[in-house]
Amino acid sequence: MSSKFKNAKRIEGLDSNVWIEFTKLAADPSVVNLGQGLPDISLPMYIKEELSKIATTDSLNQYTRGFGHPSLVKALSCLYEKLYQNQINPDKEILVTVGAYGSLFNAIHGLIDEGDEVIIIVPFYDCYEPMVRMAGATPVFVPLRSKPVDGRKWSSSDWTLDPQELASKFNSKTKAIILNTPHNPLGKVYTREELQVIADLCIKYDTLCISDEVYEWLVYAGNKHLKIATFPGMWERTITIGSAGKTFSVTGWKLGWSIGPDHLIKHLQTVQQNTVYTCATPLQEALAHAFWIDIKRMDDPECYFNSLPKELELKRDRMVHLLESIGLKPIVPDGGYFIIADVSLMDADLSDMENNNEPYDYKFVKWMTKNKKLSAIPVSAFCNSETKLQFEKFVRFCFIKKDSTLDAAEEIFKAWSRQKS
Amino acid sequence: MSSKFKNAKRIEGLDSNVWIEFTKLAADPSVVNLGQGLPDISLPMYIKEELSKIATTDSLNQYTRGFGHPSLVKALSCLYEKLYQNQINPDKEILVTVGAYGSLFNAIHGLIDEGDEVIIIVPFYDCYEPMVRMAGATPVFVPLRSKPVDGRKWSSSDWTLDPQELASKFNSKTKAIILNTPHNPLGKVYTREELQVIADLCIKYDTLCISDEVYEWLVYAGNKHLKIATFPGMWERTITIGSAGKTFSVTGWKLGWSIGPDHLIKHLQTVQQNTVYTCATPLQEALAHAFWIDIKRMDDPECYFNSLPKELELKRDRMVHLLESIGLKPIVPDGGYFIIADVSLMDADLSDMENNNEPYDYKFVKWMTKNKKLSAIPVSAFCNSETKLQFEKFVRFCFIKKDSTLDAAEEIFKAWSRQKS
Ligand SMILES: Cc1ncc(COP(=O)(O)O)c(C=O)c1O
Ligand SMILES: Cc1ncc(COP(=O)(O)O)c(C=O)c1O
Repeated sequence: MSSKFKNAKRIEGLDSNVWIEFTKLAADPSVVNLGQGLPDISLPMYIKEELSKIATTDSLNQYTRGFGHPSLVKALSCLYEKLYQNQINPDKEILVTVGAYGSLFNAIHGLIDEGDEVIIIVPFYDCYEPMVRMAGATPVFVPLRSKPVDGRKWSSSDWTLDPQELASKFNSKTKAIILNTPHNPLGKVYTREELQVIADLCIKYDTLCISDEVYEWLVYAGNKHLKIATFPGMWERTITIGSAGKTFSVTGWKLGWSIGPDHLIKHLQTVQQNTVYTCATPLQEALAHAFWIDIKRMDDPECYFNSLPKELELKRDRMVHLLESIGLKPIVPDGGYFIIADVSLMDADLSDMENNNEPYDYKFVKWMTKNKKLSAIPVSAFCNSETKLQFEKFVRFCFIKKDSTLDAAEEIFKAWSRQKS
Repeated sequence: MSSKFKNAKRIEGLDSNVWIEFTKLAADPSVVNLGQGLPDISLPMYIKEELSKIATTDSLNQYTRGFGHPSLVKALSCLYEKLYQNQINPDKEILVTVGAYGSLFNAIHGLIDEGDEVIIIVPFYDCYEPMVRMAGATPVFVPLRSKPVDGRKWSSSDWTLDPQELASKFNSKTKAIILNTPHNPLGKVYTREELQVIADLCIKYDTLCISDEVYEWLVYAGNKHLKIATFPGMWERTITIGSAGKTFSVTGWKLGWSIGPDHLIKHLQTVQQNTVYTCATPLQEALAHAFWIDIKRMDDPECYFNSLPKELELKRDRMVHLLESIGLKPIVPDGGYFIIADVSLMDADLSDMENNNEPYDYKFVKWMTKNKKLSAIPVSAFCNSETKLQFEKFVRFCFIKKDSTLDAAEEIFKAWSRQKS
């Protein structure tokens, strides 16, 4: 074949993708899907109704402002001004993007150069690594490590960074650290002390912080989401990323946003105007309406920012109980809508599985999807190649699912554990 | 300011953008906007209604397949199989992207390396140049040149490539040529002979062809849109790009697609999964429905692919007449929905305009927007810096506008020309 048909070097080796592989497997309608973070709960009525209404207005189906639809950036600035307790310029300090994915890409592509180093905390949302590699930079990995938990429940808060180890990864080439709180897949919500360690290092080594906070509203009793951008000295060096998909459970809308100082956001804007130019207008307008509804009732338990975490906390507790009842020891998440557990205790005969070079969890999930009609996501997908082995016994289950889906999963698990005993 | 706040080198100098600059100017509601290609005609009822219905189905607001929603790639393969008279694999030979912009970016980012050369025909849709530069490649420009037209009407078909000149731009470093037919801003529809010259060179020098065909349905009597991918030897080396925004007059949906051989499309897919991952589900589903409606009635004059060009041809003729009536000599477009004219004959006193380093057309459009409340787009925005001077007397007017908008433009032009005389 002609050599001209070859890919550009920047994407060499970046062609495998966990979502594409496992979403295909889970597409079989007989499979109970606890894989991808795809809500099947009822959506808030108003968000659907707003889109339904807006769709019929001709002008709202045409191009809008490239850096964000005016009514949406206004709503976002109003909301985040409350959270930052500071003014946010809707035109210069906010950029609306194609999902949080688009914000991550714009930030990395606009700010990270060949030869730079970017610190990534393991496990990590899988796209961080290929995005950094595509920019020609070097990802530098640092793991979250768990304390021993003996008899007690295992919590996502048992997973912490070793401050010394983290500090050892910073140097003059470090351009940025990517932070994710609440964390996918562990569900960890970073504490003030933990964030302060990171902030101090960012300031000491003069690095940027890309803070992926897509699960910012999804924190459970006893925990509080904190924004590192509000720490002294951090606003000027932080890009904070949010997602409509996670905020309003409409993952299919693919709208996200970056918030940060003008001197950083402008570079993300440059990337946007040379890659996609603008985001979908009707979705942005509907999202703005939904935000206004909830901004006006933020202290009300009905506000989706309050009601969704309440709804999910019950589901989390149910999943913990279920996994424990079949003899597993899940890591109880403090935030987000995923729970992970060591599945090597389950009775799964993987000897027949092809592709023996795959990590244990990849084979396990494929086996479980085929034989138990239950899907999940292998946690080693969230690791660099050197750390995959440490996490390959773990599998991630998504619990933003309606009761009947969780019932079906429960039945599968219970039948499976009866077989075992 | 910290040096760590600096942009990545790849975006250096790519921060200005004609759309962002001129859309802001035209946002004043008292301005009659013939600038950006933004339809204000009535949309087809069914496309709005489909979206309105789909918005209320929970599952259609969640993530879908990353490379294209299954029902949409199916509809696209069915449509394009008719046009290519060949089978098209919906999963491997089609990629749904964030507008045609997203397809252009994915193709360039996935296939073009640092040091490659990419041939761009001048004038060109403005994003081609920064996208090629962002990939670290060198754009090589070749101009369309006009034959003298003496007394007759000036047509977009008078603008042609000199085959010798074009051939001189190809060499062993040439990775691709970007073609755009029907052409924005000239409205040129390339003939079979013209495309054959390009195809022969692509094959001789073993280069790719990125064929931007977003206006594929918008060709006027006496012209026929041809797809270079259907020329012998071209399928294997061509990425053909389409746009929902242009096909169904919903520019705000930002959905596009790339069609090509598996061995090329897979590299665009790799870029997609590491930049945005997937496109908006409700819009993709609604688009699929709209396509099925029109695929089933392709021979019917009601089919939007037939009715829209008919509707636009009348508007084109009206614009030609209007521009001629005030003494201009427009270049009559054979396709697309733009018309350009040399405006240096208009009476515009630009001596007061700030920023004297700007090309004439930039100043003219700013002056006209401010003083005549009519906006347009400067054609030098579609040129590289070396050719801006050749085109700076031209301004582009968009005519996918309802009658009342064209009436308002007519009034402005007539009053202006009465003032003159
Ligand atoms: C941590 C994290 N970041 C980013 C994303 C991508 O969000 P979006 O769908 O808005 O692009 C996800 C989605 O699962 C995520 O979990
Ligand atoms: C020639 C050409 N290509 C691409 C595009 C971008 O299309 P989309 O809005 O689908 O990204 C346009 C829009 O005006 C265009 O004129």
